Amino acid sequence: MGVMSRWEPNARGRLEQAALALYVERGFEQTTVAEIAKRAGLTERTFFRHFADKREVLFWGAGDLQELLVSTLASAPDSAAPIDAVAAAVEAVETVFAERREFARQRQRVIAANVELQERELIKLATLSAALAGVLRRRGVADPAAELAAEAGIAVFKLAFQRWVDPDNQQAFGALVRESLAELKAVTAGK
Amino acid sequence: MGVMSRWEPNARGRLEQAALALYVERGFEQTTVAEIAKRAGLTERTFFRHFADKREVLFWGAGDLQELLVSTLASAPDSAAPIDAVAAAVEAVETVFAERREFARQRQRVIAANVELQERELIKLATLSAALAGVLRRRGVADPAAELAAEAGIAVFKLAFQRWVDPDNQQAFGALVRESLAELKAVTAGK
Repeated sequence: MGVMSRWEPNARGRLEQAALALYVERGFEQTTVAEIAKRAGLTERTFFRHFADKREVLFWGAGDLQELLVSTLASAPDSAAPIDAVAAAVEAVETVFAERREFARQRQRVIAANVELQERELIKLATLSAALAGVLRRRGVADPAAELAAEAGIAVFKLAFQRWVDPDNQQAFGALVRESLAELKAVTAGK
Repeated sequence: MGVMSRWEPNARGRLEQAALALYVERGFEQTTVAEIAKRAGLTERTFFRHFADKREVLFWGAGDLQELLVSTLASAPDSAAPIDAVAAAVEAVETVFAERREFARQRQRVIAANVELQERELIKLATLSAALAGVLRRRGVADPAAELAAEAGIAVFKLAFQRWVDPDNQQAFGALVRESLAELKAVTAGK
């Protein structure tokens, strides 16, 4: 990457932007890698140096997101209740999300228009949930509490994310997580 | 179905049993429709009269399950809190599950061995969650409570189901639902 970047400045970012613009304009299915490369002023070969396929443009961030959630949760204070430790990890995602809001909004429009991408998004969330449950178990939280706290945390993540990508919403991601957690707590308390 | 059954008694049930036995023995991927039909003493043509493909043998019940959950939830008393109304609907599934426990256990082994089937199961659960949220909205529950109560209900369903298909567990499904709901309530309360 370091060497390539010298002669193709920000190829990855340009490809990502071009892909997203085309997915929004024409639909994900109808867009080819050749068209993405052309729009970005790059070659197909360069595209495949950065992304395995056109779907990966939308999902490459999942690994980083998981790593951030896992490392934040792993370093939570021992005294924190599992649900609160998970929610704090989700809240911490704000630092990486903040500058990607416009990207996330466009990405959401693309995903909402394609059933296969929605399924991939579901699987991504289930993978995150399993990763969080794994960290909780390593922290000594027994099942089913580990699994339930992780599932509840992902439900909070989903709801906060939905609101955050809504074009009419200007609240910060962290605030939306806190709000969503409070709502989940009220609902499960039978309110 | 009525006419066919006269000359091929219980073809559907025989195909289902044969398929499941083969999926357990050889793996889902390695089993062909021809082998399933042969094991059941029927033709491939008969198989395709009952199932669209070999995956449908494992998932045809999803529609009935959704219908039962939706109709039970729709007739819950107005006074019930959304989470309790959803949990009561999940509990009501016991009536159809009870006689299918051995089938469900075998099916679970097949699904646990195949990533694609696990993904299909996730999508099935997400579809159930969306259906339950829809019923709650029609009952006048506003979002996000409708969505969160449905998601929480599905988390309870998943956990109760996991325990119910565990060969070492002999508790009834309804009891497992009540237990799982109590655990979810404790976890989200920060215990």
